[in-house]
Amino acid sequence: MEKKLIEVCFTPKEYNYFKDKFDVVVVIDVLRATSAICSAFANGVKAVIPVETIEEARAYQNKGYLVGAERNGEIVDGFDFGNSPFSYLNPKLKGEEVVLSTTNGTRAIQMAVGAPHVLIASLINAEAIIQKVAKLNKNTVCLCSGWKDNFNLEDTICAGMIAEGLMRNHSFTSNEDSTIAAKYLYLSAKDNYFGFLKSSSHRRRLKRLNLNEDIKYCLNPNQLDLVPALKGTKIVLDS
Amino acid sequence: MEKKLIEVCFTPKEYNYFKDKFDVVVVIDVLRATSAICSAFANGVKAVIPVETIEEARAYQNKGYLVGAERNGEIVDGFDFGNSPFSYLNPKLKGEEVVLSTTNGTRAIQMAVGAPHVLIASLINAEAIIQKVAKLNKNTVCLCSGWKDNFNLEDTICAGMIAEGLMRNHSFTSNEDSTIAAKYLYLSAKDNYFGFLKSSSHRRRLKRLNLNEDIKYCLNPNQLDLVPALKGTKIVLDS
Repeated sequence: MEKKLIEVCFTPKEYNYFKDKFDVVVVIDVLRATSAICSAFANGVKAVIPVETIEEARAYQNKGYLVGAERNGEIVDGFDFGNSPFSYLNPKLKGEEVVLSTTNGTRAIQMAVGAPHVLIASLINAEAIIQKVAKLNKNTVCLCSGWKDNFNLEDTICAGMIAEGLMRNHSFTSNEDSTIAAKYLYLSAKDNYFGFLKSSSHRRRLKRLNLNEDIKYCLNPNQLDLVPALKGTKIVLDS
Repeated sequence: MEKKLIEVCFTPKEYNYFKDKFDVVVVIDVLRATSAICSAFANGVKAVIPVETIEEARAYQNKGYLVGAERNGEIVDGFDFGNSPFSYLNPKLKGEEVVLSTTNGTRAIQMAVGAPHVLIASLINAEAIIQKVAKLNKNTVCLCSGWKDNFNLEDTICAGMIAEGLMRNHSFTSNEDSTIAAKYLYLSAKDNYFGFLKSSSHRRRLKRLNLNEDIKYCLNPNQLDLVPALKGTKIVLDS
């Protein structure tokens, strides 16, 4: 049986090189957009609508939607919440459609629009993503959101975990050096994500904002057995 | 004493983020441009003139210079040699000025022009580079040449070796996730560069061209105790 490709794209800036060559795009923003989206579905949210700009977010707010908006790690003034996963565990969100705009994650999701399958991944649902991609059995790229177009360690480690799982236990292979690097970074980090990432730039950024509880939650892998997927303009639970 | 920065830039495409913030730029193209340049100086070459285009290379050739030109791993038609380090060990090059144009390496060198110090590094002279950077004691960035603007494993590992040495034994620190990643990739690779890189894309590319001897030479660290540096438009031996 011919092996399918699993590759890792470090930043949205590099996505043009991968675009249109893969049937499945796995979007990753561990700290914190995709972790928040996964948490929303664990809490029974009906759909998450990702939007790129604050203006779009405000337009939805004016229509009565619950809207999360984050820039540079903080809630944008005038919005209900930012991208802390804990905000999305609020019982009042159950059954609702929620709108979300973040610094990096929602932009990466928008870039993936048009691919046949767009899945939303984080460390907290990585194993569920591996199982889903293995079932789809198509060429797949993990698109890391990065930080403002720069390489980011936690997204790369999550992508490495997914790539390593697909290469070890399923019929996937890779051609790109970025994928080999992500795999080895995952193997270096996997026994202690929190320790490994303690000097990462984004963790330091969030720690300054007193978001250590968010970080601990986001770095605890495989808590959720669910796969959010983009259908049209909305993210819904894959069934 | 305030620590100086050592950072790693994965590809020329990302260099704008680092440009003008660092006093020392260490240019790396392990397979094979910077390994060839180091070998040239070990062989007593007087200067290496890096040029970006084949047209510039041809203009120098018409003036009577010895000119190396490589594209996609192969010698460009009509030139004396490509970027195999062994070509630069030819005794007839001793005391000469040699011109070189390559797919990735010379382009990265051109991008670094204007920085106060531009050093030429490869695995074969990495320790000499560490000692030189420690002596300069200024904020330093390692610029990996990559492969056609994409991330490349062997350059990153060399950058990680330099960064790790400067952080462990000298008064250097880093802020960027790319530097942490390069350090860990170096630590994963250091006991067996050849084995670690056996699946890397560029090694596969060169192997197809029967360049395994070149690869073995380039992946054998710290053979040469010398530091080539850019002075004006020419690379000369740092004294």
